[in-house]
Amino acid sequence: MKFTAGQIAELLNGKVEGNEEAIVRNVSKIEEGKPETLTFLANPKYNQYIYTTKADVVIVNDSFEAEKKIKATLIRVPNAYEALAQLLEMYEQSIPQKTGIEQPSFVDDSAKLGDFVYVGAFAYIGENVRIGDNVKIYPHTYIGDNVKIDDNTTIYAGVKVYKNCVIGKQCTIHAGAVIGSDGFGFAPNANNEYKKVAQIGNVVLKDYVEIGANTTIDRATMGSTVVQKGVKLDNLIQIAHNVEIGENTVIAAQSGVAGSTKVGQDCMIGGQVGIAGHITIANGTKAGAQTGINKSIKKENSIQFGSPTMDMGEFNRSYVVFKRLPQLKSQLDELKKKLEE
Amino acid sequence: MKFTAGQIAELLNGKVEGNEEAIVRNVSKIEEGKPETLTFLANPKYNQYIYTTKADVVIVNDSFEAEKKIKATLIRVPNAYEALAQLLEMYEQSIPQKTGIEQPSFVDDSAKLGDFVYVGAFAYIGENVRIGDNVKIYPHTYIGDNVKIDDNTTIYAGVKVYKNCVIGKQCTIHAGAVIGSDGFGFAPNANNEYKKVAQIGNVVLKDYVEIGANTTIDRATMGSTVVQKGVKLDNLIQIAHNVEIGENTVIAAQSGVAGSTKVGQDCMIGGQVGIAGHITIANGTKAGAQTGINKSIKKENSIQFGSPTMDMGEFNRSYVVFKRLPQLKSQLDELKKKLEE
Amino acid sequence: MKFTAGQIAELLNGKVEGNEEAIVRNVSKIEEGKPETLTFLANPKYNQYIYTTKADVVIVNDSFEAEKKIKATLIRVPNAYEALAQLLEMYEQSIPQKTGIEQPSFVDDSAKLGDFVYVGAFAYIGENVRIGDNVKIYPHTYIGDNVKIDDNTTIYAGVKVYKNCVIGKQCTIHAGAVIGSDGFGFAPNANNEYKKVAQIGNVVLKDYVEIGANTTIDRATMGSTVVQKGVKLDNLIQIAHNVEIGENTVIAAQSGVAGSTKVGQDCMIGGQVGIAGHITIANGTKAGAQTGINKSIKKENSIQFGSPTMDMGEFNRSYVVFKRLPQLKSQLDELKKKLEE
Repeated sequence: MKFTAGQIAELLNGKVEGNEEAIVRNVSKIEEGKPETLTFLANPKYNQYIYTTKADVVIVNDSFEAEKKIKATLIRVPNAYEALAQLLEMYEQSIPQKTGIEQPSFVDDSAKLGDFVYVGAFAYIGENVRIGDNVKIYPHTYIGDNVKIDDNTTIYAGVKVYKNCVIGKQCTIHAGAVIGSDGFGFAPNANNEYKKVAQIGNVVLKDYVEIGANTTIDRATMGSTVVQKGVKLDNLIQIAHNVEIGENTVIAAQSGVAGSTKVGQDCMIGGQVGIAGHITIANGTKAGAQTGINKSIKKENSIQFGSPTMDMGEFNRSYVVFKRLPQLKSQLDELKKKLEE
Repeated sequence: MKFTAGQIAELLNGKVEGNEEAIVRNVSKIEEGKPETLTFLANPKYNQYIYTTKADVVIVNDSFEAEKKIKATLIRVPNAYEALAQLLEMYEQSIPQKTGIEQPSFVDDSAKLGDFVYVGAFAYIGENVRIGDNVKIYPHTYIGDNVKIDDNTTIYAGVKVYKNCVIGKQCTIHAGAVIGSDGFGFAPNANNEYKKVAQIGNVVLKDYVEIGANTTIDRATMGSTVVQKGVKLDNLIQIAHNVEIGENTVIAAQSGVAGSTKVGQDCMIGGQVGIAGHITIANGTKAGAQTGINKSIKKENSIQFGSPTMDMGEFNRSYVVFKRLPQLKSQLDELKKKLEE
Repeated sequence: MKFTAGQIAELLNGKVEGNEEAIVRNVSKIEEGKPETLTFLANPKYNQYIYTTKADVVIVNDSFEAEKKIKATLIRVPNAYEALAQLLEMYEQSIPQKTGIEQPSFVDDSAKLGDFVYVGAFAYIGENVRIGDNVKIYPHTYIGDNVKIDDNTTIYAGVKVYKNCVIGKQCTIHAGAVIGSDGFGFAPNANNEYKKVAQIGNVVLKDYVEIGANTTIDRATMGSTVVQKGVKLDNLIQIAHNVEIGENTVIAAQSGVAGSTKVGQDCMIGGQVGIAGHITIANGTKAGAQTGINKSIKKENSIQFGSPTMDMGEFNRSYVVFKRLPQLKSQLDELKKKLEE
């Protein structure tokens, strides 16, 4: 590719500051920027690099104020991260898309595929499966009996979807994710042995859902485990049976939600967070990494932290004292001694 | 399906309270119950819903005492959850089972398969593999050389079993689980480089074991990593090399057990728990979610919590004070000031 | 196999103490040692077993001092664990290696394979892939378009490598690992919806890297996520987009590193550790299990522990007081009461 700063500014409705004819042939990170590349600055943590980057063109927020002279040409836009997203998407779309049915693959006679579908080699599509238009099923994907997948969804290599699950439009499921494995349900008997409880429900992913690599979502015992519209789950996440994740909630890697819990809308859950079973998390809840949420969160838009969880501000105030506990103890011992004297 | 409350009560040896002729055509959750469905009440947390559920029939414990009038027909049984498990199993068994060898699949000439086996398309069965009767091997499963799998075991799509591993009767292994990957063993040299220690042992799963989706169990350096009879492991669990998990122990999702540790029988380990290497966990140990067990637990039937772990009661008493540490510090500062005066 | 103690000592340049003619036919763990087996003692935790083991030959460190009579024949070497590693490797190398192209497999016409390559059945090798000599690609592995894999690397069953990734020499990637899935990047809009940011970078694994089962490494938004030479990652680890892991760093199972973080060289990160995004971890950092590193670690060779992280010594000193917080509170209350009197 080859563009001038002026051409890119036009694509983005941005304003050039510097050389309109500066040429870019590739993209780079601001801290490693190379000549003839385009980069961006959105996170203020990286401000320092704009003065030294070797990239020739940098997309910045309108609000950015330079503190020193900048060698690179700037393109000012209302939101640099969104503008970058737009450019990357154009680039991605310029790459030819996979299409057609590769061989050998296994498509049951009773399955129905839409138009412009890609089915990779070694993909398995079971009985009565319904697949919409423009769906991409990469190699080694397993689509169990009676599964429905709506238009424009992409399922990467090696995803396993158990029977009866339903996947919406415009979803993306990354390699190795498992959708619809049995919930972890066992009834103990008098000998401490556990008898399996058959899990006859399914998993429903609504539209615009993204599921990360090797994430697992268990089917409901009865009814459905539901991931609502616009939810984004990172890698290696566990969603247990009968859980519901509310619209536009995002969850970072390695977090887990135990059985029958309802997580609200617009939540932001950090990495390695654990959420107990049979509880409710209010809309707009935020949780810091490694938080252990062991009770329902009823107030909307709170920020949770710690294990077991507390309001983040309270946790931090307690933790400041925790760090100085040995001194606190010494002071107390001293006081006690004094008083005894 | 179509049953009357009376018919279901007969199946379960239960007692009808209400309309024996009430009809059910499906199952539902108590909080979302629909007309002509069957539901159940086992967890007292859900008691409130029995007065408003639209389900026509509810299975309850003999010991359940209603506080208000209930519209639904009740079926009383000694254990509602077990009775539900029984019904769901009957339902599951009424669905036709997969059987036969789908093509293309890869079965080495030296492998021996039992009767009534299912081998899905794209399954791989290596040299000298022995597979018992009624075993189900779903698509994309890899069974390495010399593996033995006993009767009635089900292995879902995309499971990978490395060479020489042994799997018992009546086991269930969910999609994406990895059995027998190399233990994490490296010998550091003088340059801080790590030389791999070859892992020549295997993994042995005894009878009635269930392994969750994307769980990983490493082979022993020498000898066997052993998962004893009746153990149930949830999704995304890590079992390291040379570990032994005792009979009927259950472990919730995303927990990990480090190398050479022995976990006793009848333990209940919560989600995201970490158990250090080279330690021993006594029979009947319970651990709350996110507990970090960094030392052997010698007393049986204790309840562990916190990271690093403590007796749960003690942890909770300390944590109550932790939450009020800023106030505690203020009090101390005040006392000190007073005393100085 | 059948060896005498004398023969093994010769292989290892070790010194026999006891019967040079003692015969071993297999290996065993010291605590379960059987007659005619070889075992080793490296970790002092296991010293007690050397006096009772039934193994006939034990490899020990030169520095080992017996406190009682030992029945077994000893072979003294400078480093017992390294010597064991050497023996296990010889054993491993004596087993015939997989080679050749099994059918059915999918190798795109534009792909180039080196000499002595193994491609298992149902492996998928995309367009313009380059694979070096002696590479082993096990069944169900997916190698996306334009991927490069250098000599002597082994990729176990069901690994998924997305397009454009680069894998060095002598690497080992275990079953179910995902290399190059999309980074978790979304730009929120005014309606709390998240728009996907296309991830056009790749993942680069340098030489001598080992990746555990079901571990996930996301591709960079732009540029590369880099795992440097000699890094060893255990199972179920998450490495986010744009991360760099420094040379010879080892990370235990279920740990995660968030986006754009740089982990230094020679670090040792325990299991279930979380490392936040956009930070830097100094060379030689050690972190105990379940540590939550939420800020850059600037001092080299520190030992981190706790969540949020502290210097391990300081954390432990605080935790000692935490365990006694209820008593501390009682003492304070008592003092207060006394003072008020």
